[in-house]
Amino acid sequence: MCELLGMSANVPTDICFSFTGLMQRGGKTGPHRDGWGITFYEDKGYRTFKDPQPCYGSPIAKLVQEYPIKSCTVIGHIRQANRGQVALQNTHPFTREHWGSYWTFAHNGQLDNYQSLAVPGKHQPVGDTDSELAFCWLLNQLDGQFPHRPDDPLLLFAAIADFCTQIRELGIINILLSDGNYLFAYCSTTLHWLTRRAPFGEARLLDEDIAIDFHHQTSPDDIVTVIATLPLTSNEQWHKIEPGQHLLFYQGVCLNA
Amino acid sequence: MCELLGMSANVPTDICFSFTGLMQRGGKTGPHRDGWGITFYEDKGYRTFKDPQPCYGSPIAKLVQEYPIKSCTVIGHIRQANRGQVALQNTHPFTREHWGSYWTFAHNGQLDNYQSLAVPGKHQPVGDTDSELAFCWLLNQLDGQFPHRPDDPLLLFAAIADFCTQIRELGIINILLSDGNYLFAYCSTTLHWLTRRAPFGEARLLDEDIAIDFHHQTSPDDIVTVIATLPLTSNEQWHKIEPGQHLLFYQGVCLNA
Repeated sequence: MCELLGMSANVPTDICFSFTGLMQRGGKTGPHRDGWGITFYEDKGYRTFKDPQPCYGSPIAKLVQEYPIKSCTVIGHIRQANRGQVALQNTHPFTREHWGSYWTFAHNGQLDNYQSLAVPGKHQPVGDTDSELAFCWLLNQLDGQFPHRPDDPLLLFAAIADFCTQIRELGIINILLSDGNYLFAYCSTTLHWLTRRAPFGEARLLDEDIAIDFHHQTSPDDIVTVIATLPLTSNEQWHKIEPGQHLLFYQGVCLNA
Repeated sequence: MCELLGMSANVPTDICFSFTGLMQRGGKTGPHRDGWGITFYEDKGYRTFKDPQPCYGSPIAKLVQEYPIKSCTVIGHIRQANRGQVALQNTHPFTREHWGSYWTFAHNGQLDNYQSLAVPGKHQPVGDTDSELAFCWLLNQLDGQFPHRPDDPLLLFAAIADFCTQIRELGIINILLSDGNYLFAYCSTTLHWLTRRAPFGEARLLDEDIAIDFHHQTSPDDIVTVIATLPLTSNEQWHKIEPGQHLLFYQGVCLNA
């Protein structure tokens, strides 16, 4: 399986602390040695750092850990391959333009008989993972259902959640998805989240002997939500998302809880 | 204006030497301070490093310069903004999936009245550059002309060259374009190239006091073509592409010269 990491914030925020926790699981404290990637949105653009090599020990991961890229929306992923060989085209996250925005997708889980998702449409997979195929299927379904992007984000992402529930009939599909503004999380089995806001305190990583006092890193109005497959810190209260449930975040705030 | 850098090779090759030359022009020996990007294809996948900040002095550019990513097809770009603000969504290269492959595009030049390129179609721009709009127009034209990818690459890229000639009526459009296997160069005003093959010799950068002896870095069967807006080395014979001409490279070899 894999591990997911997402962030939604109301001010550009770096994810160095959480990424440092996650990357230990990419070959050191966890078995996710088959590549990793992280996408940062900035304004309407994005940049993705990825590597088909283990995260732990990667010079590119070291850069991401040490160079504080500030973003309001981030999706990261470390991979333990099940469907699709270890290769760059199979390394999450995947990003596609749709409705004039960049959409980014990462998946934890495994699907059976997923070739049923191979349908004609605007978006076709390049690699051979169940994940990229599911992402293309989802965008193609959206394209069929909505000729233009709906104005109401709750309506749009509820439709996306329905498509995720259809995909879930094929197996396990924990998903993080974003258009750069909204961060959508769909839980099939395991996904956790927390929101940090004032008064900020200290957080301590589970996977590495590192603590950070967010009080010194933040302003009183900051709201930062982190989503991860498993909790990343030992001294904070993480919420479990229930299987079948989706959450939608905008600027760090959950819109549908 | 901007500067372009491309590479086509028959074995995975790093571009650290040429990139070191180019990045000096991104704020040190040249005025291209408005961002930079470089896309490396590996197998069917790609990864792009980009920054809306100047290349010279960028920690990410330093990583690209020092970490030898080996690739057979590379497209790089340093930007001096003319159309579109300095922002990540306006930073080249641009990559889109088409026909199940990732296509990457970078542009040097400037177009007038380019809103005529805004047509309905699969691909819509996210940023506000003439370049990204021209790329989307080109892919949408291809989509209209060919329901499936033509088997003959010479036929396909000749059609692409015809579309470039149409865009050229709006201004200056020096282009590098690739699907990961083929590297296509269209010259509107200025583009140079050279092919390195055995017997390999020493090359000396124009923009920095660095020389490399490719004899020690290569095998006798290696073929590596580099394309750049202006020559990057002082002691090698660069060929100028004639305005209106396009060249198509596959594994370092020009297929249509």
